[in-house]
Amino acid sequence: LRLEKDMKILIVGLGLLGGSYAMALKAKGYHVKAITKDQSSIDYAINRGIIDEGAAEIIPEWVGEADLIIFALYPHIFIEWIKAHNSLLKAGTYITDVTGVKGAVVYEIQKMLPVGVEFISAHPMAGKEVYGVENADDGIFRNANYIVVPTEKNSQRAITLCEDLGRVLGFKSVSRLSVDEHDEMIAFLSQLTHCIAVALMCCHDNPDLDKYTGDSFRDLTRIAKINDEMWSELFVMNKQQLLSQMKIFAARFERLMQNLEAENIDDMRSMMRLSTERRAHFDR
Amino acid sequence: LRLEKDMKILIVGLGLLGGSYAMALKAKGYHVKAITKDQSSIDYAINRGIIDEGAAEIIPEWVGEADLIIFALYPHIFIEWIKAHNSLLKAGTYITDVTGVKGAVVYEIQKMLPVGVEFISAHPMAGKEVYGVENADDGIFRNANYIVVPTEKNSQRAITLCEDLGRVLGFKSVSRLSVDEHDEMIAFLSQLTHCIAVALMCCHDNPDLDKYTGDSFRDLTRIAKINDEMWSELFVMNKQQLLSQMKIFAARFERLMQNLEAENIDDMRSMMRLSTERRAHFDR
Repeated sequence: LRLEKDMKILIVGLGLLGGSYAMALKAKGYHVKAITKDQSSIDYAINRGIIDEGAAEIIPEWVGEADLIIFALYPHIFIEWIKAHNSLLKAGTYITDVTGVKGAVVYEIQKMLPVGVEFISAHPMAGKEVYGVENADDGIFRNANYIVVPTEKNSQRAITLCEDLGRVLGFKSVSRLSVDEHDEMIAFLSQLTHCIAVALMCCHDNPDLDKYTGDSFRDLTRIAKINDEMWSELFVMNKQQLLSQMKIFAARFERLMQNLEAENIDDMRSMMRLSTERRAHFDR
Repeated sequence: LRLEKDMKILIVGLGLLGGSYAMALKAKGYHVKAITKDQSSIDYAINRGIIDEGAAEIIPEWVGEADLIIFALYPHIFIEWIKAHNSLLKAGTYITDVTGVKGAVVYEIQKMLPVGVEFISAHPMAGKEVYGVENADDGIFRNANYIVVPTEKNSQRAITLCEDLGRVLGFKSVSRLSVDEHDEMIAFLSQLTHCIAVALMCCHDNPDLDKYTGDSFRDLTRIAKINDEMWSELFVMNKQQLLSQMKIFAARFERLMQNLEAENIDDMRSMMRLSTERRAHFDR
């Protein structure tokens, strides 16, 4: 199944990501409707041509007639929305999401859906340290990765539709992971890095730091400006995976510290060479 | 004392930093000589107009007549050079450096110099993950910080000369720190961040990571491509300061881990908000 131009697409939640999805889809010639909680977001998005139609309340017909509904909400709000409104969904509708954790979300959503409505989960690994449709920007997908996360309940049709969505949005790479693989990967690549950045910024209260800062510190802490409501929710929803990754990192860091303490330069250098070699893969 | 256009400037060590210094100074109209170990580096630099004159051996007259000698060498090679050749230095010459650690270098150098030769230490906080004069680029100074690190042995004339050099090179900010302040700052801002990047890359052997990687992981590990010879030397030379900073970071990281374990969302969010607030200073 492909994302055809005549499909009825509805975005629920018009923030940075929902808005960027809308922008990318409109640019490719799709008709895009959106539902979000603030009328001001709808007004902005219509004025800027980011969506075709929008509403600050749930319009049952839009939900019922949609071929594809993209939920761009905080995880717990997504779950609450489906719990409250699943009866509006009609057989034949595909739904997808942008949620950053999967295990705590996907199975619960799939259980609540009416017969004939299929949820195919995806994680667009793109973002910015700003919020709201006012900051929407479909350029964030260009060098980014899109991960489709099917379960055994998903059909091949839904998987190919979702992969097609990733390509239409303009992602550099579209790949597929299981729920567990995804949550482990995300714990390591994204959540752990945010933990590191936060811990680093909590070390010292020196307002003059920026006078002495090189690029490395700036790069490492760019993500230290963090939406505490969203990320604390994502962390707790992926608690076991994230704790495992934090422990692995803490052990490697400890080994480096012991090497320095003991002036074990050989092992210190071998860690540095391993690091250099692995990091070089990213620049290919 | 200002860096006057008729001053005789000699760069010892024509790698990435030495080459970038030469490039910036030539662009501002200074006459630049260089001594380095490989003739190929000299040939390249002369062909590209990066230096005016160069040699792959020590030319005593160049050393003796120089008003300012900039040493852009590994710390231990800098120390060995001065030990072997300090008798070539003539009264009235100022020398400076680019060394990333100060306590283990500055006092030792100052002790070895002939009367009338003054060493004023500086740390240009700029670099790239590539090496050699072939990669020289004076653009790396533009958004970077330059730190002058005087001791009680330094004259005001030398300090102002060195600060002027930082400005002539095109650094965004020129500031001054004591040796201890510098080494503490650098342990935290630069060495610790490199330790984190290395530890992170040592966590997993997954060659497919880049398919799932977001910007955050890429940013955090950019510096994981590390010159193991140089950095292990810098780490050991700044051992106590770096160990202290590593312990502070490990404690904050541990607190975040305990908060997650206990689902203490309030403290987790308060760390995130502190982090966000402090990081915002950097973007002013």
